[in-house]
Amino acid sequence: MGLPVTVYEVGPRDGLQNEAALVPTSGKLQLITALADAGLTRIEATSFVSPAWIPQLADAAEVTAGLPPRPGLGYVVLVPNAQGLRRLQEALARSVGGPTVAAAVFLSASEAHNLKNVNKTIEATLAAFSEVIPAARRAGLEVRGYVSTVFGCPYQGAVDPGRAAEVALRLLELGCEQVSLGDTIGVGTPDQVRAVLRRLLPAVPAGRLALHLHDTRGTALANALAGLEEGITTFDTSVGGMGGCPYAPGASGNLATEDLVYLLRGMGYDTGIDFDKLVEAGALAQRLTGRELPGKALRAALATRLEG
Amino acid sequence: MGLPVTVYEVGPRDGLQNEAALVPTSGKLQLITALADAGLTRIEATSFVSPAWIPQLADAAEVTAGLPPRPGLGYVVLVPNAQGLRRLQEALARSVGGPTVAAAVFLSASEAHNLKNVNKTIEATLAAFSEVIPAARRAGLEVRGYVSTVFGCPYQGAVDPGRAAEVALRLLELGCEQVSLGDTIGVGTPDQVRAVLRRLLPAVPAGRLALHLHDTRGTALANALAGLEEGITTFDTSVGGMGGCPYAPGASGNLATEDLVYLLRGMGYDTGIDFDKLVEAGALAQRLTGRELPGKALRAALATRLEG
Repeated sequence: MGLPVTVYEVGPRDGLQNEAALVPTSGKLQLITALADAGLTRIEATSFVSPAWIPQLADAAEVTAGLPPRPGLGYVVLVPNAQGLRRLQEALARSVGGPTVAAAVFLSASEAHNLKNVNKTIEATLAAFSEVIPAARRAGLEVRGYVSTVFGCPYQGAVDPGRAAEVALRLLELGCEQVSLGDTIGVGTPDQVRAVLRRLLPAVPAGRLALHLHDTRGTALANALAGLEEGITTFDTSVGGMGGCPYAPGASGNLATEDLVYLLRGMGYDTGIDFDKLVEAGALAQRLTGRELPGKALRAALATRLEG
Repeated sequence: MGLPVTVYEVGPRDGLQNEAALVPTSGKLQLITALADAGLTRIEATSFVSPAWIPQLADAAEVTAGLPPRPGLGYVVLVPNAQGLRRLQEALARSVGGPTVAAAVFLSASEAHNLKNVNKTIEATLAAFSEVIPAARRAGLEVRGYVSTVFGCPYQGAVDPGRAAEVALRLLELGCEQVSLGDTIGVGTPDQVRAVLRRLLPAVPAGRLALHLHDTRGTALANALAGLEEGITTFDTSVGGMGGCPYAPGASGNLATEDLVYLLRGMGYDTGIDFDKLVEAGALAQRLTGRELPGKALRAALATRLEG
């Protein structure tokens, strides 16, 4: 077997959050089950953000309470603040069978984006996290951190790689088990990926970092390759490339899970994922969102199946 | 300035050959002019194959005769055999102003694909080329060689990298200035790209090799990155990702020119290409083909323009 790589499925949260379709709770749990059946071991399930902001995830409590427990399968649920953490704990108290669930906190490497997104400075956000993260850990939850706009910001443009690395380090110091570096608007190129990673990897084991790449300009898989070459072994992806802007048909968001798995399989990495079952999950995601998803390996696999 | 990279535009031939739309000669020449205006220095213009096989390129003689000459701009036109070469020479005799035009020959690294595609064995094809290539050179034409199915074949599956490298070497020995290694069905992964290149580069200067990558499974840009890292500096791309299967909407063919140029620009390479003018050419290609093309950097650029 080749080197293990963890494909961190974010479709049920980051994907669906950015789809126009309002998928019912049962459909979300069906998709999560299909992804687990395909061999995904990490699934971002939902987010306790305000339903007024993100109606697609208004059922966060129901999804969390319904997560099917499986040996070896860990979920993550986003909590923006202490209130979100309480809601996550309440929902987990209603869950059956004890699914493994981590909490996730998020902020931006760009001051301008953080102010727009969470209405606080980066420092104020980190100050709040310095209470939320230990509280989650006291409650027995691991915590994942997300840094967005690491490679560019829609408001301020360039983001200093040193600043992005510093924000990631702060999250690790506050107690995050892993920090995911996000190319939120899909502007990064391989050199930028390397620049940020080379600031972090001398101080941080590769397993505590992940790359969360968006494919808006087609560069996500090339950026993932650069990350692999630097030693990164966790990549956030979305089934079918679900996500992107709901108002721009065909626009792509997250790196498609199938595209990454296709590449990793071809290069001999061990993901533990059954590609055919992953394609089943992708076909289900298409039915649930009511659109042809942009993931190319999914399209190619479905086209071949139609021919065969 | 960064290292120079040649982006070899193949949209007017490889792209249009695989589009359902029959673009008029004037539209093709308009597209070629727009691409030249954007700074492309190499453009694959058309192919003298049988119009019965490829009606999209039935006007090869008219396109060739109409190619606008420009300093520093070289065209290439496919000639499958001695008859194709004669037709190219006749068309060039009618051209005005002396455009720089090279001839291109093609065969497959896979015996099964070569038999299907040109109805001859690889050896018989090379034997024919041993007359066509010197004839073209005697006529003052440079010759480019294309090897298709280098990383996988739709009929026989795997292709031995040693055999692919051997076929490429034979073309170079027969007098091709440059040989382009094609991932015709878009199945390759970066390790395969490296495996073939590492068989060739000890014996062949990098400038005599090119990569012709298809993005059917989303891997083209990652494969290009692997090629760049091995020292390759010429990449075949198609404006907007034009091409792909005309009967599968959204299916993608060639690596999109804009995606590669976006990545190269971000990494500091010098392509000499004006990205905004390239997007203009992409918008024109969309009008000519009557469909939204799959290239992601093109889509992102056009969406931003609509917003702005």
